[in-house]
Amino acid sequence: MPTRTGDVFETIPLHLAGATEQVVVGGRDKFSLLPAALAGVKTIGVIGWGSQGPAQAQNLRDALEGTGIVVKVGLRAGSSSFAKAAASGFDRKDGTAGDMDGIIAEADLVLLLTADAAQAEGFRAIQARMKPGSTLGLSHGFLVGHMKNERAEFRHDINVVGVCPKGMGPSVRRLFEQGKEVNGAGINSSYAIQQDYTGTARNIALGWAVAIGSPYVFETTLEMEYRSDIFGERGVLLGAVWGILEALFSNFMLDGNATRGDAFARSALSLTGPISKAISDGGLLGVAKSLAREQDDAFYRNLYATYVAAKPILIEIYNEVASGREIGSVIDATNRLEAYPMSKVDGAVMWRTGETARKGNLEVAIEPSTAGIYLGIMMAQIDVLQQNGHGWSEICNETIIEAVDSLNPYMAARGVDYMIDNCSTTARLGARKWGPRFAQMVSGDVIPHTTDTEPPGDFRQWFLDHPVHRALGECMKLRPPVNISVQ
Amino acid sequence: MPTRTGDVFETIPLHLAGATEQVVVGGRDKFSLLPAALAGVKTIGVIGWGSQGPAQAQNLRDALEGTGIVVKVGLRAGSSSFAKAAASGFDRKDGTAGDMDGIIAEADLVLLLTADAAQAEGFRAIQARMKPGSTLGLSHGFLVGHMKNERAEFRHDINVVGVCPKGMGPSVRRLFEQGKEVNGAGINSSYAIQQDYTGTARNIALGWAVAIGSPYVFETTLEMEYRSDIFGERGVLLGAVWGILEALFSNFMLDGNATRGDAFARSALSLTGPISKAISDGGLLGVAKSLAREQDDAFYRNLYATYVAAKPILIEIYNEVASGREIGSVIDATNRLEAYPMSKVDGAVMWRTGETARKGNLEVAIEPSTAGIYLGIMMAQIDVLQQNGHGWSEICNETIIEAVDSLNPYMAARGVDYMIDNCSTTARLGARKWGPRFAQMVSGDVIPHTTDTEPPGDFRQWFLDHPVHRALGECMKLRPPVNISVQ
Repeated sequence: MPTRTGDVFETIPLHLAGATEQVVVGGRDKFSLLPAALAGVKTIGVIGWGSQGPAQAQNLRDALEGTGIVVKVGLRAGSSSFAKAAASGFDRKDGTAGDMDGIIAEADLVLLLTADAAQAEGFRAIQARMKPGSTLGLSHGFLVGHMKNERAEFRHDINVVGVCPKGMGPSVRRLFEQGKEVNGAGINSSYAIQQDYTGTARNIALGWAVAIGSPYVFETTLEMEYRSDIFGERGVLLGAVWGILEALFSNFMLDGNATRGDAFARSALSLTGPISKAISDGGLLGVAKSLAREQDDAFYRNLYATYVAAKPILIEIYNEVASGREIGSVIDATNRLEAYPMSKVDGAVMWRTGETARKGNLEVAIEPSTAGIYLGIMMAQIDVLQQNGHGWSEICNETIIEAVDSLNPYMAARGVDYMIDNCSTTARLGARKWGPRFAQMVSGDVIPHTTDTEPPGDFRQWFLDHPVHRALGECMKLRPPVNISVQ
Repeated sequence: MPTRTGDVFETIPLHLAGATEQVVVGGRDKFSLLPAALAGVKTIGVIGWGSQGPAQAQNLRDALEGTGIVVKVGLRAGSSSFAKAAASGFDRKDGTAGDMDGIIAEADLVLLLTADAAQAEGFRAIQARMKPGSTLGLSHGFLVGHMKNERAEFRHDINVVGVCPKGMGPSVRRLFEQGKEVNGAGINSSYAIQQDYTGTARNIALGWAVAIGSPYVFETTLEMEYRSDIFGERGVLLGAVWGILEALFSNFMLDGNATRGDAFARSALSLTGPISKAISDGGLLGVAKSLAREQDDAFYRNLYATYVAAKPILIEIYNEVASGREIGSVIDATNRLEAYPMSKVDGAVMWRTGETARKGNLEVAIEPSTAGIYLGIMMAQIDVLQQNGHGWSEICNETIIEAVDSLNPYMAARGVDYMIDNCSTTARLGARKWGPRFAQMVSGDVIPHTTDTEPPGDFRQWFLDHPVHRALGECMKLRPPVNISVQ
């Protein structure tokens, strides 16, 4: 919404392909506004030390230095994470770390950054401990989806807000550090006001988002957030990437007689390297432009066949998430993990090849079929999100920007298999559930049809004229000129 | 339950690995009991002409010839199936076919054999039209699962029974025809009494089961039926078979340098031919016994790695079905099919190879890795069903007998891809959803571990001593000495 009286941060209009969103631009030059935005907040309790916890706790402490606002980390009594938190300066000795029950009772702003299933199990006890008038902050809408399944409600005398970085914790921290050199470097966030008891929820949410280093912040609801987030990670962000790469790797060897190293270079290295870079630099059209003329046909044939085949799968995923079934499945699956731990994906021939291939001096270029398949899923994901009423900022961040500016650089450095084996439990379960569908799609539905089916005559123009390119272009204007450097 | 006063069919005790089930043995020699069993039933309305409809309508008509009980087929007004029914002798001209609304209102026994989604959509109108005291017959518990999701109830003044053949319609008909030569040839059925308003529901259900040619009939509930049925077809009956074969085909070429034809013979032809035959003839131990000594190690390594990897997936499938989520997904997915038709699986390289391979003179033997993987999934499926309280008859029929005596012979003759593309909508959706999980399991979790993991020392003995072998042996004693001949 536009800036109102009492708002600490001004919004600016972002004109995105026929729609205007009111967004807040972050950056270190806005840190001076944080005390006003967080008026009344003396203690921030960061609960959990998984992916977002370490990143947000450290960013908040750095951003709020000298303001008198104290950041404390709350963990389960006896948690092995106390040692990790202490290594980052959150220590029981000086009271900046403690058992979560106490921190929750003390904090004015409780950032609940524990794993999804832990939130689902603990939310009743957690909100019961909070002070009246305090603020519960979520970085993901999962809990709201679970509560919908359970027909449960939040306490009415607290604020409930979301600030959801569109990138994993390590990226949120790494880019914040890089932001010391280039103002505004960071991971974009969405924000949502679920409940505004004090009338100050919006200032608090935006203060939180700016303090963790978001270059820009757009509005959503926690319901739209969990739909797009859970959907996106099952789709092109994680699940689909893994699936299509496994299928492409086999296919390059089976149909193209490639060696393992060559097949790995043309699939995984091409996608996480030059294809991802071309998108980050020039958007989806940047990929199309970088192709040699003789590669054009393969790119568009794969783009078309994939768009057609991926859309029904993505609609199915969206429907599973929106219906609450996917969240129910995650809760049940998490409860089984102790008896049946999730197997790792890194044992497959492809990823064992990757270990050496990433270290070698393989020539890696944009592979037109890999690019066509990857962008075909992106385009289908974009259209499914748009048809379900998501705003362009959410669409572009949850499909493209998070991929090329947060996840893919880590995949390039550490392996796609490493990311699939080390993301959040919800995401890992989702990747294992849906990734194989995309693998089967490539081998069974895409590859056979790239030879026997000609894209319709207007397909290329449809792609070139798609409104996402303008929307992404506007979003990218708010991106500081810095690429993440994975350490 | 044991035979009681008023029961037309006697039960016999079947001693199955520590449990005794009271079962009814069918056969043509029991057809003389049908008028007594179906006392009060003058008209049987068979609703739908899909897989079970044509089979059951014809079997019932043949079995009830001369009794005065009339079998009529009811279809949607304007349905294109009227022509097919007429070709089988159910014709509007003589009143043995008609619009379903009229047939439902007239029939004393309404066999609702339409597609699952059609039942879910129409059940309120259908039961509203039935006569008080008439019997609703289901050949699948799907509707009961859907009604549980909807918190809906059956009318209280009708009987509701299930007779659920453990094989697809064409097998039910084909073996019934073969039963003219060998008494008792047919497909086993489970039966369930959901509601007994008249006190005669059990006789009616068993009469129906015997009339369609079931060699033996065991008791279950419609809830246990839909759990085991939907689970089984997503597992080893359809989804898993397709998935593991696609993965094995690629692997034989990639890791073993096999030609396409050879890879097809070692995967699909081996499974649907000699492996399936060995099970049908000698149970699961029959496969182990038929291996040469030097094949033993590969068989057990694959059996073990697969059992371990498949069990969590099968537990997940069972949980999705039992929770009602899988049924909700099927309903939603079916509603999307008009806009997004299901793609076929037959386009993949493997199945195009199969078209010619099935006609060729390839040498086909039991491939130890294929056998180990197939039986590994079977064993895991058996254990998941047992742990969820299913009886041995249901377990053996829904895992092994339906596979080797009904489905696999059709797969051998027409192709696995043909079966996956032409089974019921619920099964097709399930195969497409879960099959790729099993494919990924083989390439990512099984094959890497057959070389790096030794089965525990007691694993072989665990397999050889598993109670399923005794249970299956007892079930097989009730099987007439006839193999299905696919035309």
